Amino acid sequence: MSQKRGQYAKSEVKRQALAESALKLVQEKGHRAVTVAEIAALAGVSEQSLFYHFPSKEHLFIAALQQFDDEHIRAVGKEAGAVADMGPRAEVGVRRTHLSRLFAEMSGAAVDHGHPANEYFRKRLARSLHVVSTDIVRLQGLEIVSEDIDAASAARRLLAAWNGLQFQWHHGPEFDIRAELEAVVDAVLRLTAEKRALLERDFHGD
Amino acid sequence: MSQKRGQYAKSEVKRQALAESALKLVQEKGHRAVTVAEIAALAGVSEQSLFYHFPSKEHLFIAALQQFDDEHIRAVGKEAGAVADMGPRAEVGVRRTHLSRLFAEMSGAAVDHGHPANEYFRKRLARSLHVVSTDIVRLQGLEIVSEDIDAASAARRLLAAWNGLQFQWHHGPEFDIRAELEAVVDAVLRLTAEKRALLERDFHGD
Repeated sequence: MSQKRGQYAKSEVKRQALAESALKLVQEKGHRAVTVAEIAALAGVSEQSLFYHFPSKEHLFIAALQQFDDEHIRAVGKEAGAVADMGPRAEVGVRRTHLSRLFAEMSGAAVDHGHPANEYFRKRLARSLHVVSTDIVRLQGLEIVSEDIDAASAARRLLAAWNGLQFQWHHGPEFDIRAELEAVVDAVLRLTAEKRALLERDFHGD
Repeated sequence: MSQKRGQYAKSEVKRQALAESALKLVQEKGHRAVTVAEIAALAGVSEQSLFYHFPSKEHLFIAALQQFDDEHIRAVGKEAGAVADMGPRAEVGVRRTHLSRLFAEMSGAAVDHGHPANEYFRKRLARSLHVVSTDIVRLQGLEIVSEDIDAASAARRLLAAWNGLQFQWHHGPEFDIRAELEAVVDAVLRLTAEKRALLERDFHGD
Protein backbone atom coordinates (compact mmCIF):
# COMPACT_ATOMS: atom_id res chain seq x y z
CA MET A 1 0.00 0.00 0.00
CA SER A 2 1.36 3.46 -0.88
CA GLN A 3 1.86 5.93 1.95
CA LYS A 4 -1.04 8.03 0.66
CA ARG A 5 -3.46 5.10 0.60
CA GLY A 6 -2.30 4.11 4.07
CA GLN A 7 -3.05 7.59 5.37
CA TYR A 8 -6.43 7.55 3.67
CA ALA A 9 -7.28 4.22 5.28
CA LYS A 10 -6.20 5.49 8.70
CA SER A 11 -8.28 8.58 8.24
CA GLU A 12 -11.32 6.46 7.32
CA VAL A 13 -10.85 4.35 10.46
CA LYS A 14 -10.90 7.48 12.61
CA ARG A 15 -13.92 8.86 10.83
CA GLN A 16 -15.76 5.59 11.31
CA ALA A 17 -14.80 5.39 15.01
CA LEU A 18 -16.10 8.93 15.53
CA ALA A 19 -19.41 8.16 13.80
CA GLU A 20 -19.86 5.02 15.91
CA SER A 21 -19.01 6.86 19.14
CA ALA A 22 -21.36 9.71 18.29
CA LEU A 23 -24.21 7.25 17.65
CA LYS A 24 -23.51 5.29 20.82
CA LEU A 25 -23.45 8.38 23.03
CA VAL A 26 -26.52 9.94 21.40
CA GLN A 27 -28.46 6.72 22.00
CA GLU A 28 -27.28 6.59 25.62
CA LYS A 29 -27.85 10.15 26.75
CA GLY A 30 -29.43 12.21 23.99
CA HIS A 31 -27.70 14.61 21.61
CA ARG A 32 -28.19 17.67 23.78
CA ALA A 33 -26.27 16.09 26.64
CA VAL A 34 -23.35 14.76 24.58
CA THR A 35 -20.14 16.76 24.35
CA VAL A 36 -17.60 16.72 21.54
CA ALA A 37 -14.91 15.84 24.10
CA GLU A 38 -16.79 12.67 25.11
CA ILE A 39 -17.19 11.56 21.51
CA ALA A 40 -13.49 12.12 20.82
CA ALA A 41 -12.50 10.24 23.98
CA LEU A 42 -14.71 7.24 23.22
CA ALA A 43 -13.35 7.07 19.67
CA GLY A 44 -9.76 7.38 20.94
CA VAL A 45 -9.19 10.39 18.71
CA SER A 46 -7.93 13.88 19.62
CA GLU A 47 -10.41 16.76 19.53
CA GLN A 48 -8.25 18.42 16.91
CA SER A 49 -8.56 15.36 14.72
CA LEU A 50 -12.31 15.22 15.40
CA PHE A 51 -12.76 18.77 14.11
CA TYR A 52 -10.68 17.92 11.06
CA HIS A 53 -13.19 15.20 10.17
CA PHE A 54 -16.32 16.90 11.44
CA PRO A 55 -16.17 20.71 11.39
CA SER A 56 -19.21 21.04 13.70
CA LYS A 57 -21.33 19.09 16.15
CA GLU A 58 -24.05 18.98 13.47
CA HIS A 59 -21.71 17.13 11.13
CA LEU A 60 -21.03 14.57 13.86
CA PHE A 61 -24.74 14.09 14.47
CA ILE A 62 -25.41 13.61 10.78
CA ALA A 63 -22.69 10.94 10.76
CA ALA A 64 -24.45 9.32 13.76
CA LEU A 65 -27.78 9.19 11.89
CA GLN A 66 -26.02 7.83 8.84
CA GLN A 67 -24.27 5.26 10.98
CA PHE A 68 -27.60 4.14 12.42
CA ASP A 69 -29.07 3.74 8.93
CA ASP A 70 -26.03 1.72 7.80
CA GLU A 71 -26.09 -0.58 10.84
CA HIS A 72 -29.82 -1.03 10.41
CA ILE A 73 -29.49 -1.95 6.73
CA ARG A 74 -26.73 -4.45 7.59
CA ALA A 75 -28.80 -5.93 10.43
CA VAL A 76 -31.81 -6.72 8.25
CA GLY A 77 -29.55 -7.78 5.38
CA LYS A 78 -31.12 -5.33 2.95
CA GLU A 79 -32.75 -1.91 2.78
CA ALA A 80 -35.86 -2.32 4.87
CA GLY A 81 -38.67 -1.10 2.66
CA ALA A 82 -41.48 -3.60 3.18
CA VAL A 83 -44.84 -1.87 3.26
CA ALA A 84 -46.09 -4.64 5.58
CA ASP A 85 -43.42 -3.69 8.11
CA MET A 86 -44.08 0.06 8.22
CA GLY A 87 -46.48 0.03 11.16
CA PRO A 88 -44.25 -2.09 13.44
CA ARG A 89 -41.21 -0.01 12.46
CA ALA A 90 -43.02 3.24 13.24
CA GLU A 91 -43.85 1.81 16.66
CA VAL A 92 -40.25 0.82 17.37
CA GLY A 93 -38.94 4.08 15.93
CA VAL A 94 -40.73 6.46 18.29
CA ARG A 95 -39.61 4.39 21.28
CA ARG A 96 -35.98 5.09 20.41
CA THR A 97 -36.46 8.45 22.08
CA HIS A 98 -32.97 9.91 21.89
CA LEU A 99 -32.32 8.99 18.29
CA SER A 100 -35.81 9.91 17.20
CA ARG A 101 -35.46 13.36 18.74
CA LEU A 102 -32.15 13.96 17.02
CA PHE A 103 -33.70 12.86 13.74
CA ALA A 104 -36.66 15.22 14.20
CA GLU A 105 -34.52 18.18 15.18
CA MET A 106 -32.11 17.67 12.28
CA SER A 107 -34.98 17.12 9.91
CA GLY A 108 -36.42 20.51 10.91
CA ALA A 109 -33.11 22.32 10.55
CA ALA A 110 -32.46 20.64 7.18
CA VAL A 111 -35.34 22.44 5.45
CA ASP A 112 -32.72 25.17 5.03
CA HIS A 113 -30.83 23.96 1.95
CA GLY A 114 -27.64 25.52 3.30
CA HIS A 115 -27.76 23.30 6.42
CA PRO A 116 -25.25 20.44 6.43
CA ALA A 117 -28.03 17.89 7.11
CA ASN A 118 -29.98 18.81 3.98
CA GLU A 119 -27.99 16.44 1.75
CA TYR A 120 -28.49 13.58 4.22
CA PHE A 121 -32.28 14.00 4.29
CA ARG A 122 -32.54 14.52 0.55
CA LYS A 123 -30.59 11.35 -0.19
CA ARG A 124 -32.40 9.41 2.51
CA LEU A 125 -35.79 10.37 1.07
CA ALA A 126 -34.70 9.37 -2.45
CA ARG A 127 -33.53 5.99 -1.15
CA SER A 128 -36.67 5.43 0.92
CA LEU A 129 -38.91 6.35 -2.02
CA HIS A 130 -37.00 3.84 -4.11
CA VAL A 131 -37.23 0.91 -1.68
CA VAL A 132 -40.87 1.49 -0.77
CA SER A 133 -42.01 1.89 -4.36
CA THR A 134 -40.03 -1.22 -5.30
CA ASP A 135 -41.99 -3.15 -2.67
CA ILE A 136 -45.28 -1.72 -3.97
CA VAL A 137 -44.41 -2.85 -7.51
CA ARG A 138 -43.61 -6.30 -6.12
CA LEU A 139 -46.99 -6.36 -4.34
CA GLN A 140 -48.65 -5.40 -7.61
CA GLY A 141 -47.00 -8.43 -9.20
CA LEU A 142 -48.54 -10.57 -6.45
CA GLU A 143 -51.95 -8.94 -7.11
CA ILE A 144 -52.10 -7.68 -3.53
CA VAL A 145 -51.96 -4.05 -4.68
CA SER A 146 -53.95 -2.89 -7.68
CA GLU A 147 -52.00 -2.26 -10.90
CA ASP A 148 -53.53 1.18 -11.44
CA ILE A 149 -51.85 2.66 -8.36
CA ASP A 150 -48.77 4.75 -9.10
CA ALA A 151 -46.08 3.14 -6.95
CA ALA A 152 -43.80 6.18 -6.73
CA SER A 153 -46.59 8.53 -5.63
CA ALA A 154 -48.01 6.00 -3.20
CA ALA A 155 -44.55 5.58 -1.64
CA ARG A 156 -44.25 9.35 -1.22
CA ARG A 157 -47.65 9.55 0.50
CA LEU A 158 -46.90 6.68 2.86
CA LEU A 159 -43.52 8.07 3.88
CA ALA A 160 -45.08 11.50 4.42
CA ALA A 161 -47.80 10.08 6.65
CA TRP A 162 -45.21 8.13 8.66
CA ASN A 163 -43.09 11.23 9.15
CA GLY A 164 -46.05 13.41 10.11
CA LEU A 165 -47.44 10.84 12.55
CA GLN A 166 -44.02 10.66 14.18
CA PHE A 167 -44.05 14.40 14.82
CA GLN A 168 -47.58 14.24 16.24
CA TRP A 169 -46.58 11.38 18.52
CA HIS A 170 -43.50 13.21 19.78
CA HIS A 171 -45.28 16.51 20.32
CA GLY A 172 -47.86 14.56 22.27
CA PRO A 173 -50.15 13.23 23.50
CA GLU A 174 -49.12 9.73 22.38
CA PHE A 175 -51.44 7.49 20.33
CA ASP A 176 -51.29 4.14 18.52
CA ILE A 177 -48.93 5.14 15.71
CA ARG A 178 -48.87 1.65 14.23
CA ALA A 179 -52.65 1.49 13.85
CA GLU A 180 -52.78 4.98 12.35
CA LEU A 181 -50.01 4.33 9.84
CA GLU A 182 -51.45 0.97 8.80
CA ALA A 183 -54.81 2.66 8.21
CA VAL A 184 -53.07 5.11 5.87
CA VAL A 185 -51.30 2.22 4.09
CA ASP A 186 -54.66 0.48 3.59
CA ALA A 187 -56.28 3.68 2.32
CA VAL A 188 -53.48 4.74 -0.03
CA LEU A 189 -52.95 1.22 -1.43
CA ARG A 190 -56.70 0.50 -1.34
CA LEU A 191 -56.21 -2.72 0.62
CA THR A 192 -59.35 -4.58 1.61
CA ALA A 193 -59.24 -6.72 4.77
CA GLU A 194 -58.60 -9.70 2.51
CA LYS A 195 -55.67 -8.01 0.74
CA ARG A 196 -54.26 -6.82 4.08
CA ALA A 197 -54.28 -10.44 5.27
CA LEU A 198 -52.43 -11.46 2.09
CA LEU A 199 -49.91 -8.67 2.67
CA GLU A 200 -49.19 -9.89 6.20
CA ARG A 201 -48.97 -13.52 5.08
CA ASP A 202 -46.54 -12.61 2.30
CA PHE A 203 -44.37 -10.65 4.72
CA HIS A 204 -44.21 -13.32 7.38
CA GLY A 205 -43.58 -15.94 4.74
CA ASP A 206 -46.46 -18.26 5.77
CA MET B 1 -58.79 51.40 35.78
CA SER B 2 -56.62 50.44 38.76
CA GLN B 3 -52.89 51.02 38.50
CA LYS B 4 -52.28 47.30 38.41
CA ARG B 5 -54.69 46.73 35.55
CA GLY B 6 -53.18 49.70 33.73
CA GLN B 7 -49.73 48.17 34.04
CA TYR B 8 -51.04 44.84 32.87
CA ALA B 9 -52.59 46.45 29.80
CA LYS B 10 -49.35 48.30 29.01
CA SER B 11 -47.41 45.09 29.38
CA GLU B 12 -49.80 43.33 27.00
CA VAL B 13 -49.36 46.09 24.42
CA LYS B 14 -45.59 45.65 24.52
CA ARG B 15 -45.87 41.90 24.27
CA GLN B 16 -48.15 42.20 21.29
CA ALA B 17 -45.87 44.73 19.57
CA LEU B 18 -42.92 42.37 20.05
CA ALA B 19 -44.81 39.41 18.61
CA GLU B 20 -45.88 41.45 15.58
CA SER B 21 -42.35 42.77 15.03
CA ALA B 22 -40.85 39.31 15.34
CA LEU B 23 -43.31 37.95 12.76
CA LYS B 24 -42.72 40.84 10.38
CA LEU B 25 -38.94 40.51 10.51
CA VAL B 26 -38.98 36.71 10.23
CA GLN B 27 -41.18 36.96 7.14
CA GLU B 28 -38.88 39.60 5.64
CA LYS B 29 -35.47 38.09 6.22
CA GLY B 30 -35.76 34.66 7.83
CA HIS B 31 -35.37 33.80 11.50
CA ARG B 32 -31.66 33.06 11.27
CA ALA B 33 -30.91 36.56 10.04
CA VAL B 34 -33.09 38.42 12.57
CA THR B 35 -31.50 39.88 15.70
CA VAL B 36 -33.19 40.51 19.02
CA ALA B 37 -32.05 44.15 18.81
CA GLU B 38 -33.93 44.63 15.53
CA ILE B 39 -37.12 43.15 16.93
CA ALA B 40 -36.92 45.39 20.01
CA ALA B 41 -36.24 48.46 17.85
CA LEU B 42 -39.15 47.78 15.48
CA ALA B 43 -41.48 47.25 18.45
CA GLY B 44 -40.23 50.42 20.13
CA VAL B 45 -39.34 48.45 23.25
CA SER B 46 -36.02 48.26 25.13
CA GLU B 47 -34.02 45.04 24.91
CA GLN B 48 -34.33 44.73 28.68
CA SER B 49 -38.09 44.84 28.38
CA LEU B 50 -37.98 42.35 25.49
CA PHE B 51 -36.12 39.82 27.63
CA TYR B 52 -38.61 40.37 30.42
CA HIS B 53 -41.42 39.25 28.11
CA PHE B 54 -39.49 36.69 26.08
CA PRO B 55 -36.60 35.07 27.97
CA SER B 56 -35.03 33.69 24.75
CA LYS B 57 -35.08 34.10 21.00
CA GLU B 58 -37.04 30.83 20.84
CA HIS B 59 -39.83 32.37 22.91
CA LEU B 60 -39.98 35.30 20.51
CA PHE B 61 -40.17 32.98 17.52
CA ILE B 62 -42.97 30.96 19.10
CA ALA B 63 -44.85 34.24 19.63
CA ALA B 64 -44.25 35.03 15.95
CA LEU B 65 -45.74 31.68 14.86
CA GLN B 66 -48.67 32.21 17.23
CA GLN B 67 -49.15 35.71 15.85
CA PHE B 68 -49.24 34.34 12.31
CA ASP B 69 -51.90 31.78 13.30
CA ASP B 70 -53.99 34.48 14.99
CA GLU B 71 -53.78 36.87 12.04
CA HIS B 72 -54.60 34.04 9.68
CA ILE B 73 -57.66 33.01 11.69
CA ARG B 74 -58.85 36.63 11.78
CA ALA B 75 -58.24 37.02 8.04
CA VAL B 76 -60.43 34.07 7.06
CA GLY B 77 -63.01 34.94 9.73
CA LYS B 78 -62.78 31.51 11.35
CA GLU B 79 -60.36 28.66 12.02
CA ALA B 80 -59.48 27.45 8.56
CA GLY B 81 -60.18 23.74 8.67
CA ALA B 82 -61.93 22.96 5.39
CA VAL B 83 -60.76 19.66 3.98
CA ALA B 84 -61.46 21.04 0.48
CA ASP B 85 -58.94 23.82 1.10
CA MET B 86 -56.04 21.67 2.36
CA GLY B 87 -54.34 21.20 -1.00
CA PRO B 88 -54.34 24.90 -1.93
CA ARG B 89 -53.20 25.85 1.58
CA ALA B 90 -50.34 23.36 1.46
CA GLU B 91 -49.27 24.95 -1.82
CA VAL B 92 -49.35 28.49 -0.39
CA GLY B 93 -47.72 27.33 2.82
CA VAL B 94 -44.49 25.99 1.35
CA ARG B 95 -44.06 29.17 -0.70
CA ARG B 96 -43.88 31.22 2.50
CA THR B 97 -40.28 30.09 2.72
CA HIS B 98 -39.08 32.03 5.78
CA LEU B 99 -42.07 31.26 7.95
CA SER B 100 -42.29 27.68 6.79
CA ARG B 101 -38.63 27.10 7.68
CA LEU B 102 -39.08 28.57 11.13
CA PHE B 103 -42.11 26.35 11.62
CA ALA B 104 -40.20 23.23 10.53
CA GLU B 105 -37.18 23.99 12.69
CA MET B 106 -39.29 24.72 15.76
CA SER B 107 -41.42 21.66 15.11
CA GLY B 108 -38.29 19.50 15.13
CA ALA B 109 -36.93 21.05 18.32
CA ALA B 110 -40.34 20.74 20.01
CA VAL B 111 -40.25 16.93 20.05
CA ASP B 112 -38.28 17.50 23.25
CA HIS B 113 -41.07 18.07 25.78
CA GLY B 114 -38.80 20.42 27.72
CA HIS B 115 -38.51 22.76 24.73
CA PRO B 116 -40.52 25.99 25.03
CA ALA B 117 -42.21 25.33 21.64
CA ASN B 118 -43.64 21.98 22.73
CA GLU B 119 -46.77 23.53 24.23
CA TYR B 120 -47.39 25.59 21.10
CA PHE B 121 -47.25 22.54 18.82
CA ARG B 122 -49.27 20.39 21.16
CA LYS B 123 -52.07 22.96 21.39
CA ARG B 124 -51.90 23.70 17.69
CA LEU B 125 -52.30 20.01 16.82
CA ALA B 126 -55.26 19.66 19.20
CA ARG B 127 -56.93 22.68 17.61
CA SER B 128 -56.21 21.50 14.05
CA LEU B 129 -57.55 18.03 14.83
CA HIS B 130 -60.69 19.64 16.16
CA VAL B 131 -61.38 21.91 13.19
CA VAL B 132 -60.55 19.31 10.54
CA SER B 133 -62.64 16.59 12.18
CA THR B 134 -65.50 19.07 12.58
CA ASP B 135 -65.38 19.67 8.83
CA ILE B 136 -65.33 15.92 8.16
CA VAL B 137 -68.43 15.44 10.34
CA ARG B 138 -70.12 18.26 8.41
CA LEU B 139 -69.21 16.53 5.12
CA GLN B 140 -70.68 13.31 6.49
CA GLY B 141 -73.91 15.21 7.13
CA LEU B 142 -73.88 16.26 3.45
CA GLU B 143 -73.25 12.62 2.43
CA ILE B 144 -70.00 13.60 0.72
CA VAL B 145 -67.95 11.54 3.20
CA SER B 146 -69.12 8.09 4.27
CA GLU B 147 -70.59 7.80 7.78
CA ASP B 148 -68.41 4.83 8.71
CA ILE B 149 -65.19 6.87 8.61
CA ASP B 150 -63.91 7.94 12.02
CA ALA B 151 -63.60 11.72 11.70
CA ALA B 152 -61.00 12.18 14.45
CA SER B 153 -58.67 9.50 13.08
CA ALA B 154 -59.11 10.69 9.51
CA ALA B 155 -58.22 14.24 10.61
CA ARG B 156 -55.06 12.96 12.28
CA ARG B 157 -54.01 11.09 9.15
CA LEU B 158 -54.62 14.04 6.85
CA LEU B 159 -52.71 16.46 9.06
CA ALA B 160 -49.83 13.98 9.32
CA ALA B 161 -49.64 13.59 5.55
CA TRP B 162 -49.68 17.36 5.10
CA ASN B 163 -46.88 17.80 7.60
CA GLY B 164 -44.77 15.02 6.13
CA LEU B 165 -45.25 16.23 2.56
CA GLN B 166 -44.14 19.68 3.69
CA PHE B 167 -40.86 18.26 5.01
CA GLN B 168 -40.29 16.31 1.79
CA TRP B 169 -40.94 19.42 -0.27
CA HIS B 170 -38.55 21.52 1.78
CA HIS B 171 -35.80 18.93 1.84
CA GLY B 172 -36.19 18.73 -1.91
CA PRO B 173 -36.54 18.14 -4.74
CA GLU B 174 -39.86 20.00 -5.01
CA PHE B 175 -43.02 18.33 -6.30
CA ASP B 176 -46.73 19.10 -6.66
CA ILE B 177 -47.64 19.16 -2.97
CA ARG B 178 -51.25 20.09 -3.65
CA ALA B 179 -51.84 17.09 -5.93
CA GLU B 180 -50.15 14.72 -3.48
CA LEU B 181 -52.10 15.96 -0.48
CA GLU B 182 -55.41 15.90 -2.33
CA ALA B 183 -54.71 12.32 -3.37
CA VAL B 184 -54.25 11.44 0.33
CA VAL B 185 -57.49 13.26 1.20
CA ASP B 186 -59.33 11.26 -1.47
CA ALA B 187 -57.80 7.98 -0.26
CA VAL B 188 -58.36 8.56 3.48
CA LEU B 189 -61.91 9.91 3.03
CA ARG B 190 -62.62 7.41 0.22
CA LEU B 191 -63.78 10.14 -2.15
CA THR B 192 -64.72 9.03 -5.65
CA ALA B 193 -64.33 11.55 -8.49
CA GLU B 194 -68.03 12.34 -8.08
CA LYS B 195 -67.70 13.00 -4.33
CA ARG B 196 -64.53 15.08 -4.90
CA ALA B 197 -66.55 17.26 -7.31
CA LEU B 198 -69.28 17.65 -4.66
CA LEU B 199 -66.62 18.60 -2.10
CA GLU B 200 -65.23 21.33 -4.35
CA ARG B 201 -68.71 22.60 -5.20
CA ASP B 202 -69.66 22.75 -1.53
CA PHE B 203 -66.46 24.66 -0.69
CA HIS B 204 -66.78 27.22 -3.45
CA GLY B 205 -70.45 27.65 -2.65
CA ASP B 206 -71.75 26.97 -6.16
